[in-house]
Amino acid sequence: MSDPQAIAKQFTDFYYQTFDSNRAGIQALYRDNSMMTWEGTQILGASSIVEKITTLPFAKVQHKVTTLDAQPSSNAVASILVSVTGMLLVDDSPNPLQFSQIFQLIPDGTSYYVFNDIFRLNYG
Amino acid sequence: MSDPQAIAKQFTDFYYQTFDSNRAGIQALYRDNSMMTWEGTQILGASSIVEKITTLPFAKVQHKVTTLDAQPSSNAVASILVSVTGMLLVDDSPNPLQFSQIFQLIPDGTSYYVFNDIFRLNYG
Repeated sequence: MSDPQAIAKQFTDFYYQTFDSNRAGIQALYRDNSMMTWEGTQILGASSIVEKITTLPFAKVQHKVTTLDAQPSSNAVASILVSVTGMLLVDDSPNPLQFSQIFQLIPDGTSYYVFNDIFRLNYG
Repeated sequence: MSDPQAIAKQFTDFYYQTFDSNRAGIQALYRDNSMMTWEGTQILGASSIVEKITTLPFAKVQHKVTTLDAQPSSNAVASILVSVTGMLLVDDSPNPLQFSQIFQLIPDGTSYYVFNDIFRLNYG
C-alpha cells in the first residue's frame, strides 16, 4: 500500500520548488475542477488558479516547510489530505511570514492532481 | 444545495464550544474509522481520539477562530474540507498559541462526522 506521508513529502517538495522557481509550472498539477481558496478568495480551475498565482505581487518567493502531515482522505479511492505549515520569504524582506496550506490530492493514472487547495497567511 | 462555508461555521462553532466546555463531548463527532494527527502523532478511532483530547496537559482551554475556509471535498458525496487558523488560550497563560486545524466532514444522515482531523501548533 502507498504511504500517504511519503507521497505528501514528494508532492510538496515538487510543488514548492516549482512555485519558487517557475510559478506558471504549477498549472500541470491542477485540473478544470480544482478549487483554490487563497486568503479567503475562491478560485476554480487550473487556468484561473495559475493566473492568480502568477500575478501575486512579489517577484521572488521561497517556501520553507515547517510541518507536514498527511492522511488518506477516502475509503473509496487513494486520495490524500496534506497539511503544511511553514514560512514564506518574500522578495528581500528579512521577516518571514507564517503560512498554512492544505491540499487534497486525487490519483490520476500513476500520479496525482490537486482537487482542493486552501492557503492562509497566519498573522501573530 | 448546501453551503460548505455555512456548514463549516456551524460545525466549528459547535466543535470548539464543546471542546472548551466539555472535552469528552466531542466523541460523538467521530467514528471508529476517524483519523486524527495531533502534533504529528497519528490516532485512529473515536475512543482513542477522545482519550487523547481528554488527557491533554491543561485544565482550561479556549479556541478563538481567526480564519475559516471550506470547500466541497468530493464530486461523489457531500463531504466538506474545513481549514481553521486561530489562537489557543491555555489555562491562565497570557500568551495565546497559534494553531491550524483541518477537518474533513462526511455526511451521516442529517448530520456530519469527522473523518480527518489534523492539528498543529504554529510556532513563530
